[in-house]
Amino acid sequence: MHKRRVEKPDGRYLYLYGHAPPAETAAAHSPTAPPPAPHLRWHPLRQEWVIYAAHRQDRTHLPPETRCPLCPARPDAPPGEIPFATFEIAVFQNRFPALTPTPPPPPDLPVPAAPAHGACEVVVYTPEHTASLATLPPQRRELLVRVWADRYAELLAHPAVRYVMPFENRGEAVGVTLHHPHGQIYAYPFLPPVPEREAAAFREGPVLLRLLETAREGYTVLEDAHVQAFVPPFARFPYEVWVAPKRPHPGPWTFTDAETQSFARMLGEIAARYDALFQRPCPYLLALHAAPKGTEAYYHFHAEFYPYLRAPNKLKYLAGTEVGAGAFTVDVLPEVAAQALRETRA
Amino acid sequence: MHKRRVEKPDGRYLYLYGHAPPAETAAAHSPTAPPPAPHLRWHPLRQEWVIYAAHRQDRTHLPPETRCPLCPARPDAPPGEIPFATFEIAVFQNRFPALTPTPPPPPDLPVPAAPAHGACEVVVYTPEHTASLATLPPQRRELLVRVWADRYAELLAHPAVRYVMPFENRGEAVGVTLHHPHGQIYAYPFLPPVPEREAAAFREGPVLLRLLETAREGYTVLEDAHVQAFVPPFARFPYEVWVAPKRPHPGPWTFTDAETQSFARMLGEIAARYDALFQRPCPYLLALHAAPKGTEAYYHFHAEFYPYLRAPNKLKYLAGTEVGAGAFTVDVLPEVAAQALRETRA
Repeated sequence: MHKRRVEKPDGRYLYLYGHAPPAETAAAHSPTAPPPAPHLRWHPLRQEWVIYAAHRQDRTHLPPETRCPLCPARPDAPPGEIPFATFEIAVFQNRFPALTPTPPPPPDLPVPAAPAHGACEVVVYTPEHTASLATLPPQRRELLVRVWADRYAELLAHPAVRYVMPFENRGEAVGVTLHHPHGQIYAYPFLPPVPEREAAAFREGPVLLRLLETAREGYTVLEDAHVQAFVPPFARFPYEVWVAPKRPHPGPWTFTDAETQSFARMLGEIAARYDALFQRPCPYLLALHAAPKGTEAYYHFHAEFYPYLRAPNKLKYLAGTEVGAGAFTVDVLPEVAAQALRETRA
Repeated sequence: MHKRRVEKPDGRYLYLYGHAPPAETAAAHSPTAPPPAPHLRWHPLRQEWVIYAAHRQDRTHLPPETRCPLCPARPDAPPGEIPFATFEIAVFQNRFPALTPTPPPPPDLPVPAAPAHGACEVVVYTPEHTASLATLPPQRRELLVRVWADRYAELLAHPAVRYVMPFENRGEAVGVTLHHPHGQIYAYPFLPPVPEREAAAFREGPVLLRLLETAREGYTVLEDAHVQAFVPPFARFPYEVWVAPKRPHPGPWTFTDAETQSFARMLGEIAARYDALFQRPCPYLLALHAAPKGTEAYYHFHAEFYPYLRAPNKLKYLAGTEVGAGAFTVDVLPEVAAQALRETRA
């Protein structure tokens, strides 16, 4: 894998990753961003940090394709974020980050506050505006898994960073503000509630290894020698799917080549089956769950897909019992979802 | 307050609450529902219960006003849920409940499962199809607070129930499937994650009492001698508002008349200001946070409003960092939100 770092005019970094060496010369300028000033505040009842990033309110919102900031530079278009005429995968610092390597001190407040140390990156999967995780060529998806592994290694090396989460919001129903196929990476200076509870569960025992065994029959959607894709028997979303390596890894940075290929293939296949099952581009949240710093010895890496549909024309909304109490209500039994996804041909 | 219990043809109960004695004779029949069969499954990584209610997939979805099941009975309309020509407030068992007093045993599964004991109720605020919490007459809103208090008392009396949460999903953006002004009540047989963490925080100290004092300046939207409505300095949603009695109460069932009136007035005023601020019916989640069973001595009751807008035409979506990691990112500073809501005239 080739990797090249470029400095943007406003000081943000941009990485070009490729099977081939990336282009040497920028073809255009980049838009500049003002220095971000996010900060953290402590929620004393939920006992969690909340991130404040007031500058994000003005972020780019569903621009037309001709003004897409993630497309490669074109002579007839305004400058985008990637000033090259072509690329394979590009990663750059979000222009409207919620977390940043150089945060200002937090304001004086009636609750505890802290600097919003960390990073928010954008991962552009392809120069093609209308592609998707499902339609990427297999080699590009493999490259994406290697890019994630490289970002994990680089971001986790910062002493302030405690947790790194690559994710993809796909579709307007999940709040996507740019259609060009891309994901994001957040590097947090604190351990967020979800990985905190997961790490506590893994500390007690190999929960996911046991599941891969006990839930294999009836819940598996796809598997090969290295990776298993399955509907967890306790799915919180209709048609939720987890993709997990059969050997426990703290993250994709310890994958063998065969595991990388297999994991990449399954991600693409699951995304494709969602689109086929619902006969439309399925909105989803895909999040990678890797070991928080210090839990590498027992945390078992996996990816979780949360589709935001419960039927072709019915969105799954989060409100009421889910957001008010934290108790999820699901309309589709995992056994039924697994069978439907097993039988779907993309 | 008058209260009358009626049995529906399928065995579900219906309560009519009123300042005046409710009508004696039903004006129509009710639709019948098959016996619900929800169950619970344990999520071993997040360490929480998930509720499965497969029958909910077919629930009534955005019917036209002429077929609204929450409108009073009319000779020219199909039978609705409330077979009376008029009423003040009606409460009945949800036809598609996620929790029920008579659940079947759970299926045999590769993860722990349990019966979905509890209740799911629908609270219809008014016979008027196009009203809202904001436009209800003050007396009706007061009656609503008294109805909640009565439902808390009755549902918490069940030995299987550990937590009760009345809430309102308002607007299609929050997943509302019926437009008629109404809320819901879930009575859970387990302590869900949110009240669990809140109760743990209250056990350590009077968190909310302290906040009402320290965050009064700069964060208060409205207050009187009894109740304070404020944007918490650690709000997780843009324009989030909490409404809390100044004296700690475990729930509205220990309110004085003056507290009931004041609390009801503030709920209506906040809902009205949201509509005025965004110049549209603002989608929101309103959840009442009362003491889980056994925490009455220290839990401080309050209501939380989560508006699902971050600007008049921009929805707040839950995905990425919020749903994947549990870390909320907010674009609007609480100080700014509080000032905007303070200056808004409904």
